[in-house]
Amino acid sequence: MQPDPIKKFAAVFAKLPGVGPRQAVRLAFHLVESEQSLLGEISDSVAELMGLKICRNCFFVHGNSDGLCDICRDPKRNPQIIAVVEKATDLLSLEKTKKFSGRYLVLGDLKKTGVMEPEQKLRMAALKKYIEKDCGGQAEEIILAINPTAYGDLNAAMLTTELKPFAKKFSRLGRGIPTGGEIEFADEETLSSALERRT
Amino acid sequence: MQPDPIKKFAAVFAKLPGVGPRQAVRLAFHLVESEQSLLGEISDSVAELMGLKICRNCFFVHGNSDGLCDICRDPKRNPQIIAVVEKATDLLSLEKTKKFSGRYLVLGDLKKTGVMEPEQKLRMAALKKYIEKDCGGQAEEIILAINPTAYGDLNAAMLTTELKPFAKKFSRLGRGIPTGGEIEFADEETLSSALERRT
Repeated sequence: MQPDPIKKFAAVFAKLPGVGPRQAVRLAFHLVESEQSLLGEISDSVAELMGLKICRNCFFVHGNSDGLCDICRDPKRNPQIIAVVEKATDLLSLEKTKKFSGRYLVLGDLKKTGVMEPEQKLRMAALKKYIEKDCGGQAEEIILAINPTAYGDLNAAMLTTELKPFAKKFSRLGRGIPTGGEIEFADEETLSSALERRT
Repeated sequence: MQPDPIKKFAAVFAKLPGVGPRQAVRLAFHLVESEQSLLGEISDSVAELMGLKICRNCFFVHGNSDGLCDICRDPKRNPQIIAVVEKATDLLSLEKTKKFSGRYLVLGDLKKTGVMEPEQKLRMAALKKYIEKDCGGQAEEIILAINPTAYGDLNAAMLTTELKPFAKKFSRLGRGIPTGGEIEFADEETLSSALERRT
């Protein structure tokens, strides 16, 4: 009963992260029932995404012609401090704080096994090459901005071993009670971390 | 820090039902980081949606050239029994049961106020015209397949008043304990309905 274009659209969109098969069908109908201008906007915005590239240095997204993202091209950013993040959106969150003036490596979602995928190995190799070229062989600091979960700890340990010779210092983001949070509702792990890291 | 195409894509997609602004940004990055073929598939599937139309009879979606959907064109469907649904996806759910061989009217989401929007008034007018033409002025039955909520009851009452002269019988979907559900966990309203409608 579903027209083929609805089925096809739903099949494609259900592959996207966070979109379930039911939502994909609902979206398809919504779009057909909306004004054609919305479909046009979507079509245009998808076409424009096609023009974006991945930075050859840090693997963040950019639209520049020299292969480098806005951060890697920025001479005011400190090349000696590198934050390793999993997702591009993690990078955006850190940028919003305006407290970090170093550079990045976007590594992609790390597996729970502590083993890197081939693409991630390539990115690590690019980081090492970049440290050799731009940081004189050893960066001042590598911040492992990986989520503070059990798997994150595992992966951070793996990355530290892997990158050992390439930085003088390794750090992770501070742990504690989030601003606005309440002690009463903090879990034990968090509260232990907050105590240990009291300032 | 977000390249413009990411911003634009996120702004467009955040307008879609069930897609939040954060998810829209995540989607944008996911797409850029995926293989180009995925962007191509999305682009194609959106383009194909553009070819779909809304049935002039029941307002369901179709890709036919005569302005009628597959259900309205089907001579085996009984034109005397019409199910009024809010969403095209409600129609699909009813079709999946294979227990209904009548026709439909897709009315669009009804407001909680019991007042119809201009587009919905047009669709009601189309239904009346269709009943006059295809059902000899009065359909055998109109099934108000509207959700069994307080607002749904309000809207069903409004629709019954509105369509009074156009059908011999009005009905709504049966209420009770869903198959597989447990009496212990059924709310009072549902259990009352199940008792009243015991068979």
